[in-house]
Parts: sequence; C-alpha cells; structure tokens
Amino acid sequence: MAGTNRSDVNLAEGPAIILCEPQLGENIGMVARAMANFGLSDLRLVSPRDGWPNERARAAASRADHVIDAARLYETAAEAVADLTYVLATTARPRDSLKPVRGPEEAGAELRARISVGQGAGILFGRERFGLNNDEIGLADEIVTFPVNPAFASLNIAQAVLLMSYEWMKSGGSEGPRFTAPEVAPAEKEDLQRFLDHLEGMLDAAGYFHPPEKRSAMSQKVRTILTKAAFSEGEVRTLRGMLRHLERRMAQAGRRS
Amino acid sequence: MAGTNRSDVNLAEGPAIILCEPQLGENIGMVARAMANFGLSDLRLVSPRDGWPNERARAAASRADHVIDAARLYETAAEAVADLTYVLATTARPRDSLKPVRGPEEAGAELRARISVGQGAGILFGRERFGLNNDEIGLADEIVTFPVNPAFASLNIAQAVLLMSYEWMKSGGSEGPRFTAPEVAPAEKEDLQRFLDHLEGMLDAAGYFHPPEKRSAMSQKVRTILTKAAFSEGEVRTLRGMLRHLERRMAQAGRRS
Repeated sequence: MAGTNRSDVNLAEGPAIILCEPQLGENIGMVARAMANFGLSDLRLVSPRDGWPNERARAAASRADHVIDAARLYETAAEAVADLTYVLATTARPRDSLKPVRGPEEAGAELRARISVGQGAGILFGRERFGLNNDEIGLADEIVTFPVNPAFASLNIAQAVLLMSYEWMKSGGSEGPRFTAPEVAPAEKEDLQRFLDHLEGMLDAAGYFHPPEKRSAMSQKVRTILTKAAFSEGEVRTLRGMLRHLERRMAQAGRRS
Repeated sequence: MAGTNRSDVNLAEGPAIILCEPQLGENIGMVARAMANFGLSDLRLVSPRDGWPNERARAAASRADHVIDAARLYETAAEAVADLTYVLATTARPRDSLKPVRGPEEAGAELRARISVGQGAGILFGRERFGLNNDEIGLADEIVTFPVNPAFASLNIAQAVLLMSYEWMKSGGSEGPRFTAPEVAPAEKEDLQRFLDHLEGMLDAAGYFHPPEKRSAMSQKVRTILTKAAFSEGEVRTLRGMLRHLERRMAQAGRRS
C-alpha cells in the first residue's frame, strides 16, 4: 500500500486531488491531464475499479505521465486524507447543511490561503455515477459545489477536477492575463491627422463631399470614425501606404481625363 | 448551408460556441455536454472533419442532445460569425499583440455585458492540433487566453469550452456586469467583412499587394487594423460609401487605360 511516503510530495505545489473509486481509466487520465494543465501533481486514487496502474489512464493523460507515475493508491478515503489538514468535498448539490458550502472560486482562494501557510489540503471527488457517499463527505471540512445549469447538472469528474485546478491556478494571482491593452501605443495625433488629411484630399478629388454645404459634417464624421480606433504609428503608416496606392491609381484617371 | 435562419437562436441565452474544423466527434460531443452544463446552446461547427451529423459526437454528448440537434454547420469561420457583433478568439498564448487579451473570467463578464444589451456574441475555438489560424483570429475583436501551466499548456477544446462556459455562468452571479457597453453596437461581422473585402478588391486593382507572396500577410495586417476599431453598422456604411467614391474614380482610370 502506497501513501505513507511523504518525501515525494511537495504540498506547496497545490492541493491533492483525491478520486474516490473512479471507474474508468480514461477519466483518471483526463484528471491527470487537467491537473498538469494547472500545475497540480498530487493525485490520490481510492480503490480504482480497474486496478492500478491502468494503461487506459496513461493514454488519456496525454503526456501528463509525471502525474500518473506519482499517483498513489489508497483503500479508503479516510486513508487518502490522513496527512491533510484541510479537505474539501465536491458535490453536485450541497447535501450536508452542517458544513460550509463554497463555490469553486472561493474554494480556490481558501486552498491557496491554507497551503501558503504550510497546511496540507486536498479535494475529494466522487464516483462517476454516485458522487461521494456520506462517510466521505463527513471527512471534509467544507463542501464545494459548482454553479451548473440545474437542468443539466452532470459534470464528470475530469471536468470537476479541471474547474477546481483552474480556480487553484487563478487564486495564485499569477494567473496571467487580466486585461492587457495592446502593446503598441496609439500614434501621435499629428500622424493621425496627416493620414486623415491625406484621405480627405482623395475623397475630395473623387467628388465625395457633395453637396458642398455638407462638406464639413461629412469630413467630421469620417474623422471621428477613424479616430476611435486609436491606430498605432505603424498602423497609420500601413494605412497611408494603402492610400498612396489608391491615389496613384486615381491619378492615372486624372492625367488622362 | 445552414446558418442564416435566426429565428431559432435565442442570443439572450449566451454566446455562440464556434468550433473551427474540429476533428474528433468525441470532442464535439464533450463540448456540447460542457455547454449544457452551463446553460449554453448555440453550437456552430465550421467544416468538421468527419462531417455532420456525427454519431460519436452524440454519444459523447451524454444526453446534451438539444445542443447536438441545434448545432449549425458553416463552411468558414467568417460565415459562422457573420451575424455576431462581438467575437472572442481563444489561443493558448496571445499571438497577436494588436488585439486586447483577456483572461476567461474577464471575458465571461464582457460577454455577459454585451449580451445583456442585446449584442450577438461568440467564441472561436481552434483545431485540436493547431488551434486557430491567423485569418480566424483576424475575425475576432479580442483574444482570450487561459492561465495554464506553461510547462503543460495543452488544453483540449472541450476543456477550453468548459472553462469559458463556466465563466459565462459565473458572470451571471449577483454582482452583475462591470463593463458598460458602448451605446452604439458594433456592426455584424458580415458587414465588416464586406467592407474589408471591398477595400481589398480596390487595393488589389491598385497593385497594392506586391510582391504576391506577401499578399496574405499584407491583407491580414490591413484587416486586423480595421477590425480593432469595432466600427458600428452606420460607421461601416459611411466607410463603404467612401470606398465607392474612390472606386468610381479608379474605374475611370481603368476604362481609359
């Protein structure tokens, strides 16, 4: 029986993902992959139906071999959480009103807070068909439930693990892209105005500003439209290159008429 | 060709999920299931490799038949987004620094804000192996990227759809949307594409695309520049009126030469 050797576990890396009696090797593999995607590696299996190791799990893990190789086997959920101090149980709907219930995002933040001060934490996931039993839920400090569509609430375990792993990653703040403005700064207004003057000259030559009394309003409108994009210097350069080509073509008309 | 009938689409329900050239029916099915879990139903398929309908997709959808049955088929991504006004492209890493990049949570809030004021919105997801190509990314207003472990960044499409669907559902929470949509809605993508096609035709006639091997990159660049402004329907109309005048002038040159 594995599970007693702590030396290969770096709890600072994140919560343990504990699967209770998973049935399909494919699901275990997809769990491993989801964990790897979000930087988790401590996978614990409680009595997997088809035994362990499982080649279907490895195939479905899609190169997350390090998670599969490090997975540890337990006979009961109680043994699998024995070395942890904070345990969450995932359920489709909160069934145990005696425990606090959190959404995944809040749970991710809570896990982060616990683990950052050196606590061992883990998340229990239930069987494909029946979820966790009451004894297993009883092991948990808190319950996590997912904000699913009540009319179609069947998250599979790989999906549930994916969402929790994702919220774990996000809780680290290094989650990368909050809104990032494009790297390129807008062009100086002078550049933009030169482009707009250039365009206006061409439109003028093409008889666009008609009738004359509407000229000012029409010019205004075109300028407003093309200002709102906040084109960069390079973009303005590209647009002016475009205009030059169109203009040259128009000039041929001019010379010949 | 499906995709033109709007009567069966309730855009208030959520963003369209658009899969570009998905290869495996299983993945399409798992996408449908993830959508159903979080209350989405507008699935659009761009040239699925194995054709459509696909029984493997239905089997993997695990009773999300309503999503599978309502899925619509398109030949190109441009057609699939034609009736939308706000489009996100999902990428593993931001590749196009000219477009704003968001994380999934922010993107969910942004989608909620747009859809709540009646705008049609959608999310593009790429092929299993190669993601989205540059033309497809060019169709989008903004980019969404996932905060994955850089050492193991391979989210599959069903996982990516799950995360976006989940963030969409979460964005409906009591906090409400933070973003205030601009009063004037952006043009439908079809309108914008027609404008860009028109301009490209003129540039072509004017000999802009030279040398020929740079044509695709040059066209891409112009399209990206003119997409970022999120022009409204009226603005696109004004710009096309402008093009028509310039074109007429060029045509005079053409006839005389």
